[in-house]
Amino acid sequence: MAGKKQLEVCFSPSLLDNHPDRSAVVVIIDIFRATSSICTAFANGVTAIIPVAETSEAQAYKSKGYLVAGERDGIILDFADFGNSPDNFGREQIAGKTVVYTTTNGTRTIHLASVYRKTVIGSFLNARAVIDYLLAEGRNVLLLCAGWKGRFNLEDTVCAGYIASQLLESGQFETICDSTLASVDLWKTAENDLRGYIEKAAHRHRLKTKNLDGCIDHCLTFNLTGIVPVLLDGILVTAPSGKK
Amino acid sequence: MAGKKQLEVCFSPSLLDNHPDRSAVVVIIDIFRATSSICTAFANGVTAIIPVAETSEAQAYKSKGYLVAGERDGIILDFADFGNSPDNFGREQIAGKTVVYTTTNGTRTIHLASVYRKTVIGSFLNARAVIDYLLAEGRNVLLLCAGWKGRFNLEDTVCAGYIASQLLESGQFETICDSTLASVDLWKTAENDLRGYIEKAAHRHRLKTKNLDGCIDHCLTFNLTGIVPVLLDGILVTAPSGKK
Repeated sequence: MAGKKQLEVCFSPSLLDNHPDRSAVVVIIDIFRATSSICTAFANGVTAIIPVAETSEAQAYKSKGYLVAGERDGIILDFADFGNSPDNFGREQIAGKTVVYTTTNGTRTIHLASVYRKTVIGSFLNARAVIDYLLAEGRNVLLLCAGWKGRFNLEDTVCAGYIASQLLESGQFETICDSTLASVDLWKTAENDLRGYIEKAAHRHRLKTKNLDGCIDHCLTFNLTGIVPVLLDGILVTAPSGKK
Repeated sequence: MAGKKQLEVCFSPSLLDNHPDRSAVVVIIDIFRATSSICTAFANGVTAIIPVAETSEAQAYKSKGYLVAGERDGIILDFADFGNSPDNFGREQIAGKTVVYTTTNGTRTIHLASVYRKTVIGSFLNARAVIDYLLAEGRNVLLLCAGWKGRFNLEDTVCAGYIASQLLESGQFETICDSTLASVDLWKTAENDLRGYIEKAAHRHRLKTKNLDGCIDHCLTFNLTGIVPVLLDGILVTAPSGKK
């Protein structure tokens, strides 16, 4: 086996220019709610998800007959079939179907990340599967937090810190990236009371004001699914299990 | 007294657009080494420091007879009188003089911050004085970490976290900013062994490789001086003690 692989964490898409290693596998983390919803959709049998950055693209797909999930600032788009809460991705709605998906932060971040070698979707819901996938890949890794409108946020960072801590403990990864060290320390601060820790995060208060916080416990559930969604030609599909 | 003032932390100048409140007092934090050196210079009697972002500006000042301190990537500029280590700012070199100063990160950050209401210089060396100054000012505060070439770094964040923790504990400030919460938690992780914690920061390793780490202990010294350098018409001077 060659030397250890490099692990980096990026706190916001606004900082992505600081991570020029395009050979890395990127894990997008936007736990409230885009990447948690995507993981839920795959757990419930969605065939594929087409992430689009602009509402106009989503509307164009809608006119072609696609199912569309979309919101801006937590409000369901008027032409969409449903919003981006994990609640909307029940088996009866989406099993065996392809869904077009656009959100405030998450899908934009997916498009920004598409210049890297490979883009996968991470959340607490599939954290162990993501870790196993990255260990099997054996490439440099960038954990990319979607943040909130360009800002750092605690919830995505803590999730990145959990994944980072497991990768570093494996002995297959090393880091010279302070963001990685910070995210691991924040995870260690949070891990004994994750829900309580997330309570103090600013984004949670934003969700609360729109009465959308029913999904928080769901988004903080570990390892609900073994599926790793991966971007293939601009479409999210289930990573072949042979890679794991 | 009016309501509580808002406290925010910005991890990198690249994220400054996320902090649009121009009425805030900005504290620049670049502890390895720009803001520690500036605090040391004022402690040793410098009259004023002219921060310039570009080496060409520094060279122009040099040709007019100014003392110039400047480096890029830790290397002293060939036309400069000295580099930007705190060691260079001894009383015999700079007491009673005006120094022109340019560094890789620090002075550029000062110029970016000049759009805010007031810009002051912070480090562990004057942390208590900065805290007292901010409490006396009674305005919103943005703690701006210079980072390293646009990236997050641990040492500036931990210093911001210390200042933030004291401001929040005062009861005069509140925050809805996740970066602030994270910096406070990282400070709490570090505070019992600050030197040991900083040892793991990536930037320290960069300093080490250039044999410049003799100044680390100095930069981690608390409250060496009661002076708060403040930017006035583009020049750093001692904040009037009447403000405190």
